[in-house]
This record gives sequence, structure tokens and C-alpha cells, in this order.
Amino acid sequence: MTRHSLQHHLYIVIFGTHTKAGRAFDITLIAAILASLAVLVFESVPSVNANWGIQLRYLEYTFTALFTIEYLLRLYCSPKPTAYAKSFYGVIDLLAILPTYLAFFFPAATFMGVIRALRIMRIFRILKLVRYLQDSNLLLRSLLMARRKIFIFFSTVAILVTIFGALIYVIEGPKNGFTSIPQSIYWAIVTITTVGYGDLVPQTALGKGIAAITMLLGYSILAVPTGIITAELHQEMNSHKSLVKCPNCSRSGHESDALFCKHCGSQLADPDKRVVSVDEQGRSK
Amino acid sequence: MTRHSLQHHLYIVIFGTHTKAGRAFDITLIAAILASLAVLVFESVPSVNANWGIQLRYLEYTFTALFTIEYLLRLYCSPKPTAYAKSFYGVIDLLAILPTYLAFFFPAATFMGVIRALRIMRIFRILKLVRYLQDSNLLLRSLLMARRKIFIFFSTVAILVTIFGALIYVIEGPKNGFTSIPQSIYWAIVTITTVGYGDLVPQTALGKGIAAITMLLGYSILAVPTGIITAELHQEMNSHKSLVKCPNCSRSGHESDALFCKHCGSQLADPDKRVVSVDEQGRSK
Amino acid sequence: MTRHSLQHHLYIVIFGTHTKAGRAFDITLIAAILASLAVLVFESVPSVNANWGIQLRYLEYTFTALFTIEYLLRLYCSPKPTAYAKSFYGVIDLLAILPTYLAFFFPAATFMGVIRALRIMRIFRILKLVRYLQDSNLLLRSLLMARRKIFIFFSTVAILVTIFGALIYVIEGPKNGFTSIPQSIYWAIVTITTVGYGDLVPQTALGKGIAAITMLLGYSILAVPTGIITAELHQEMNSHKSLVKCPNCSRSGHESDALFCKHCGSQLADPDKRVVSVDEQGRSK
Amino acid sequence: MTRHSLQHHLYIVIFGTHTKAGRAFDITLIAAILASLAVLVFESVPSVNANWGIQLRYLEYTFTALFTIEYLLRLYCSPKPTAYAKSFYGVIDLLAILPTYLAFFFPAATFMGVIRALRIMRIFRILKLVRYLQDSNLLLRSLLMARRKIFIFFSTVAILVTIFGALIYVIEGPKNGFTSIPQSIYWAIVTITTVGYGDLVPQTALGKGIAAITMLLGYSILAVPTGIITAELHQEMNSHKSLVKCPNCSRSGHESDALFCKHCGSQLADPDKRVVSVDEQGRSK
Repeated sequence: MTRHSLQHHLYIVIFGTHTKAGRAFDITLIAAILASLAVLVFESVPSVNANWGIQLRYLEYTFTALFTIEYLLRLYCSPKPTAYAKSFYGVIDLLAILPTYLAFFFPAATFMGVIRALRIMRIFRILKLVRYLQDSNLLLRSLLMARRKIFIFFSTVAILVTIFGALIYVIEGPKNGFTSIPQSIYWAIVTITTVGYGDLVPQTALGKGIAAITMLLGYSILAVPTGIITAELHQEMNSHKSLVKCPNCSRSGHESDALFCKHCGSQLADPDKRVVSVDEQGRSK
Repeated sequence: MTRHSLQHHLYIVIFGTHTKAGRAFDITLIAAILASLAVLVFESVPSVNANWGIQLRYLEYTFTALFTIEYLLRLYCSPKPTAYAKSFYGVIDLLAILPTYLAFFFPAATFMGVIRALRIMRIFRILKLVRYLQDSNLLLRSLLMARRKIFIFFSTVAILVTIFGALIYVIEGPKNGFTSIPQSIYWAIVTITTVGYGDLVPQTALGKGIAAITMLLGYSILAVPTGIITAELHQEMNSHKSLVKCPNCSRSGHESDALFCKHCGSQLADPDKRVVSVDEQGRSK
Repeated sequence: MTRHSLQHHLYIVIFGTHTKAGRAFDITLIAAILASLAVLVFESVPSVNANWGIQLRYLEYTFTALFTIEYLLRLYCSPKPTAYAKSFYGVIDLLAILPTYLAFFFPAATFMGVIRALRIMRIFRILKLVRYLQDSNLLLRSLLMARRKIFIFFSTVAILVTIFGALIYVIEGPKNGFTSIPQSIYWAIVTITTVGYGDLVPQTALGKGIAAITMLLGYSILAVPTGIITAELHQEMNSHKSLVKCPNCSRSGHESDALFCKHCGSQLADPDKRVVSVDEQGRSK
Repeated sequence: MTRHSLQHHLYIVIFGTHTKAGRAFDITLIAAILASLAVLVFESVPSVNANWGIQLRYLEYTFTALFTIEYLLRLYCSPKPTAYAKSFYGVIDLLAILPTYLAFFFPAATFMGVIRALRIMRIFRILKLVRYLQDSNLLLRSLLMARRKIFIFFSTVAILVTIFGALIYVIEGPKNGFTSIPQSIYWAIVTITTVGYGDLVPQTALGKGIAAITMLLGYSILAVPTGIITAELHQEMNSHKSLVKCPNCSRSGHESDALFCKHCGSQLADPDKRVVSVDEQGRSK
């Protein structure tokens, strides 16, 4: 019983966000994630690493120890440990500690490149923060609702980019830097997204004409995803309105601050209940 | 009769998408298109072509054979073969196989550039995929509804780009790389679409001022096509809402708060049923 | 009387667009404008000018003669010649012919730069085309309705660009190319509009940080004009809906294809009249 | 009493905008701010400063004197001087004059860099103009309403930029210019915002693939803030529509098709009057 109640208590603190202790745990964890990312970033700067390399490495070990304890505690107190371990967050929590252990036990002399890649893989630790962006469900839902349209949009972009890449490859050719179709498709992506590095630029008049068409196309089809997401978001936000139904005429579509039905004039719900439902609607406060 | 039923059976498999065989055919075809594009792309990479050139060529011949069979089958089983051959998809299907045959029968020694262009023209094979983006009709309809506004928008962009190109040509002149008006219009397009390669850049103070105005114009008129498409898309999506059909005249397209059919004036449905139908509203699936 | 009727007839042909002759006149004029612009553009290409310089010059004189006749005819047949001459289109029509005459009568040897500028000023001839984009009034009205918000938006951009320009000037200084505040403001505009030429780039870590903030700001405030214009356009398009009022309950807000009031079920108007009013609503057909 | 009335009179002129004198004061102040900014900007141009340095300095002293008088007058006539001094505008008004005094009393020979930074800090004087953009509250309110969503959006961008920066750092490495993770994150920001300076560009095929994904991501998530702001702005503008006030509780904010007050349930107005008020609806003037 004691063990069970300890587990439950830990569960509320670690997984919950509503108690004072849970909130403190969350803030500490966020601070630890950000600090550990700062360590990783500073480690990669040659001048900083030369002077503070050892200190940064010990800080890294400390953070890895902390995240290991966190991971084990989560496994211990979760009601369904295997479900947690297999979940998105479980995998992220494991990935956040694994690279350091792997790098530690690897024979450093042999595969320098692997060690380096493993160290940088610690950056995925940043995904632990996604847990605290949970309120992003309105945005996410809009994107999910629009995923079919977004897929069609990206397919269209892929087709355009391939065709324009091949065209510029034929027109400009290897002598002007367009050495292969993949290279030319890369140019087309750089151009259609209006990034325009300028490392690869058409030299012939015809090539410049094709480039101009690619740019104008990119410029105008940029409008399509915006239109899709705006329309979905708008519908999502409006659908939040219509949760309350009039008890008298059963009609919905009232604004969130409405107390009385705008169609028949009867009271919608008692204010307190309404306030609760407003909170449940997940509008930005 | 047997021949007719074979034709009909093939028609359902090749043109249809609802039977199991039809679905399998579609997936095989999509895979073949993508693989054949991969062959084309890899062929253009010098290092890959040096090592695998012959294998890639034989793969290409295989795919061309497959697409030829597909084209002939489509001609054979289509109820109206000439109508198919003249349709957008018929032309695309022919274009997908023609370049390889032309390149094969051409005297390779004489026109190397033509051969090269013909090979690359195989890229238009990608348009065979458009058949499977058919569900893009909401997007397409929005664009068609807005085509007049989009034409006006592009005319405005063309006028602006010509004027700013001529201005920068006068101000900067050939000594700073603006060798002619077409070249300067190319610069104006690169700038107004915010691509900004940087291969052609104003050097004088006045030229930089003109460039700054061009950029800010581009930055703000980018908002116009977005606005047009968003507004159209929004209206399209809303017109989808109205799944409710009039019990009298069976016509749909009513606004969500309509009580009476706007076509014949009969009452649409009793309020309770309407509320249910509001929940079922045609959100994009 | 004869003269008056000639004037009136010419007026209908030249200023009107609904008669067959008027339409033919418009198409001829548009073709002449485009051809005359082509002449100007080709004249600026050194290789073309070397070979066809004299022919292009004579073409130019022909077009100027045509536009002069057009201008005089417009003055002659307009019911209020001075009002026309002072109007936007009157000024444009005069500007379209003036540069050629000025360049002709100027002592060419003395002010070569002036001659060159005068020649290029013929580009403003393109504005004669604006007359035929008249249907752009929905877009224009949206922009006019939003002009206050757009002014505030551009003021905000101006303030941001000045502050970030000054900051980067202090941080990077003349040694990294940021030679003065105007030059640095130019960089800030290039960056905030996401053009990014790359001719002027921060070199210090702090400068790069400031640049990153400028980019992200630009990236997100780009959303503001889009939002403004989308919202205005949406309202404009919706306001077109509500022109018809129900003769029974006097309520508006019906869709353009509604025959019956959606509120009370009474017939809205007789179909023929409705069709006319739809045409007058200026929706894109 | 006289002093009090003088204070009150000054208050109306200086803080108010509705009297003729107040309007004149505002216009003079705006002109002084813009002129003083022009002085600062010209001072930074080496060629101008060499010729007009002394004149510009004296102009600067004049403007500082004017702004000092303005600041003291505001302190004198404000009913709550300390509240004003602590307010946003009070701090800005102080910051607008402080740098010149500090630079004047500083031992110029010792800290040249400080003097230079102080001089440039005068640029914050531009924020005095914000006072006259007060009508920007619709835009500001939309941004504030959406601030939670914007925060989530920027967090997502920060996570993406960190991950892609780390990936490109591993793939390209210091030999291709990606010397550290901060440098690589800078590249990721330049790419995802579609600025694309081109000073740092991937060289390997894998790096170019990562860059292409970053661009396409940037291209499409650009749609998210636009969608957010458009949807908010649209809702803000619609909530403005409801100029109709309840005859019973005098509260506004009703939807345009509301018949009954949503706050107290009393009938809003008789239909005919409502139709008129719909026409008067609060379109942005």
C-alpha cells in the first residue's frame, strides 16, 4: 500500500501539471533541458570548448544523470510502464540519455565520426520540450484536418520542382553549374521557396526566363498553403463557438460570451457552468 | 461478346479505382512512374552514369515497354479511344513514351543536343501522376474561381516589374551589371518575389532606394494572392458545409442557419434534425 | 449636328467598350502598347540595337504617331476635354508620347544622360494598360478600405527597420561593410522582407543574433498585411451577398443564388431581375 | 488658480489631439522627430559628416533642447507627473534626450565606442512616433489575442531550427563553413525564413537534401502565423460589426443576425431598424 501510494504521489508530481509540486517539477525539468542544450551548443564552439571543455563535459554527465533518474522514475510510477516506454515521449526520454552512454562506452579512438554524431544527437533532447507545448492542439488539429490538402499541395510542388529542374538542366547544362538533375531540382527548390541563396544562378537569357517563371509560381502558390491553413483555423475557431446549445430552441452558434440565446431569448445556461465550458473550449486566455 | 466483356473488364481495372485489381494496377503504375523518374534522375549524375549507365538504360527500356503496353491497353479498352487519345491524360501518356522511341531511332551522331533534350523530356512522365491527384478539385476550383483576380494580380506585377526594371536600368546602367531592360526586369522579378539571388545588386544610393521600395512592394502585394485564395477557399469550404438537402426539391447548398430552402421555399427540416446535421457538416475528411 | 454626332460616335468607339468597334479599338490599342513596349525593351539590348537600331527607331516613331492621334481624338471627342486632360488617364496618355518628342527636339550632343532617361521614360506607356484592368475594383476597394491599417503596418516596418539598422551599424560598423545608417537600413529592409541578397552580411556573433531576430520578425509580421487584406477581401466578397432584401421580412444576407428568403420562406425577387442583379454585383464570372 | 488653469490648458494642448492648438503641437512634434532622425542618419554618412558635421551637431543640440522643453512641459502639466514619468511614453521621452547629454558630459577621449553607441541610441527617439500610431489597437489586439498561439509557433520554429542546425553541423562540418552549432542554427534561421543570404551554403548532397527540407518546411509553416493572424483579425473585425446596442442593458457586441440581446435577453430592435443598422455596420473607416 505504501509503495502504491508513493507511486501514485510520484505520478501526480511527474506526469501531472496541476499540483504545486508538479508545476515545480516541470519548471525544473524545462530549465534542465534548456541548460543541457546550452552545454551542447557551447561545446561545439571551438574557442569555448578549448577553455571550458572539461567543465562542460562534467555538466553534461550531471544532466544525463538527472534525465536518467527522471526516466527511471517515470517508468517506476507510470501505471502502464511499457505503454509509456513505447509512447512518443517515452522514446524521446530514452533518446535524450542514450547518446551520452553510447559515446561513453564506445572505443573513442576507432570511430571518431560516430562519437561526434552521437554527441550531436543529444540535440533531440529538445523534443522533451514538446510535452509542454501540448496546448498546441488547435494548431495541430487544423494541420491534421488539412493534411490531405497539404499532401496534394506538396505533391504539386514536387512535380513543379522536378519539371523546372529538368528544364533548367537542359537549358543551362553542366557548364553553368547545373551538373545533374538532383542539383537542378535543388536549385528549383531554392528558387520556388524564394530562399534564393545565389550559389547556383542561371546565366543564359532562356534560363533566366525559366527562373522568372519559377519565382512567380513560387510567389503565388505560396498563397495556397496559407489559404488552406487560414480556412481550417478559421473553421476550428468558429466550431469552438457552437458548443453551447439553447435549452429552449436547441439552436447553437452562440458566441462564447453569450448568456442568452440570440434566436429565442431564453437563458443559455447558468453563468458559472458557462464559465467552465469556456475554459474547456481551450480558447487562448 | 467475349471481346467486349474483356474490354469492359480491362476498363474497370485500368481506368477505375474502386475494385481491388484497379487499386493494384494504380499502385503498380505509380511505383513504375516513380522508379522510371529515379532512373532518369540518376542517369544525369555523372558519377552514377559512369558506373551504372548500361543498367540504367536497360531499366529505361523496360519502363518504356511497360508504359507502351499501358498506353495500348488504354486505347484498346477505352469506350471512346480517340476521345482518350486527345484528352490531357492521353497526350501525357503518349509523351511519356515518345522521347525514348525518338531518341532510339535518331541518328545519334548528328544532333547530340536534340538527343539530350529528348532524354530529359522523359521528365514529363511525372505528369502521369496528376491522374492520382484528382481529389485536388477543391483547390483547383478555388483557383479557377479566382482566375480573373489572379490574372489582374499578375498583370499588376508585370506592370510594376517593368517600371521598376526600367528605373533601375536608368539609375544603375550597364556599368553595374544592368546591361539591358530584360536583364533589369529579371532583377526586378528576383527582388519583388523576395528570392534575392544577389547576382545582380544595386550599387548606387538611389538604386538601393528603388530596390528597397521594390522589396517592400513585393512584401506587401504578396498578401494579395494569399487574400484572394484564402477568401475563395473559405467560400468553397463553406459551400461544402451545406450537406442538408431540401426535402421538396432535393437541392443542397443552403447556408448553415437556413430554415427554408432558398430554391423552392419549403421548410428544410425540423430544428432538432438540423442541429444534428450541423454536427455532421462536411468538414474536409 | 454632323460634327456633334461624329464626336459622339467617336466617343462611343474610343471611350466605350460595349460596341464591336469599341472592342476592336481597345484590342488594337492594347496590341500597339505591347508592341511599342517590346520595341523599347529590345532597343536596350546592345546586340539587338546594333543590328536593328534604325528599324526599331522608325517603329517607335510610328507608335508615337499612333498614340498622338489617339490622344488628339480623345481630346476631340471627349464631352469635357479639359477634365479628360487633367484625369489620370489623360496625363498617362500625354506622358506616353511626350518623351519621344522631347528627345527629338533636344540637342542630342549636350545632355546624353537626359536623352537616355527620356527614352526609358517611354516605359510609363505601360500605364495605358491600367485602363483595361478596371475590373480590379474589388481588389482596389479592399486595399482602399484597408489603407489605414496598411499605413500603420508600413509605419511599424519603418520604425523596426530604422532601429535594427542602427543597431547593426553600431555592432558591425564600417569595417564589415555597414558604412552608414542608410546603408544599414537598406540591409535591414533586405533582411526583414526576406529578400536576402547576401551582398551585405553580419560577420560578428552579436550581429548574426540581431540578424536572426530581424528575419524572424520579418517572417512573422509578413502575416499582418496578409491578414488585413484577406479579412477585407472576405468582407468585400460577403458584402456582395447581402444586396438583395426579402420583400416580406426585409432581411438581407442571402447568398447570390438564393431565390427564397432563408428566414421566412417568401420569394425573394423574380428570377430575371435576380440574374441582372447578380451581373451587377461584379462577381468574377 | 491661474497656475492650475495654465497647467490644464497646456495639458489639453500637449496631451490632447482634439483642439486646434493640440493638433498643431502634434504636427510640429512629428516634424521635429523626423528632422532629428534625418540629422542622425546624415551624420552617419562619412561624406556628409565631413562637410556638414558642425551644422548637423548644432541642429542636434537644438532638437535636444526642444525635446527637453517638451519633456519638462509634459512633467509640469501632467496631473500625475510620476505616473507619466514611469509610463512607456515617459521613458521614451526621457531616452530621447538622455544620450545627447551623456555624450556631452562624457570624457570624449577615453571611451570612443561608448560615445558612438550613445549617439546611435538617439535612434530610439523614433519610438516617440508610436504615440501617434495609437489607432493601431485593432492590429495590436489581434496580436495580443493570438499571443499564445504565436508563442507556440515560435517555440516550434526554435525547435525545428535547432534540430536542423545540429543536423547540418554534423553533415557539413567546419570544413564547409559550419564551424559551430550556433553558426549552423543561424544558417537554419536564414534558410527557414527564406531569407537565404548565401554566405553559408551546404556543399554535400546530403546537406543539400536537408537544406531542401528546411526550405519547404519554412515555406509551409510560414502559412501558420498568417492563418492565426488572419483568423484573429477576422474575428476582431466581425466583433466590430455589432454597433447595435441593447435598448435594455446598453451592451453591444452582438452578432449581426442576433434578434435578442445575448446579455440580458431583451429584444434588440425591430427588424426594419436592424436592417438599417446593418448597412451602417462598423466597417473600418
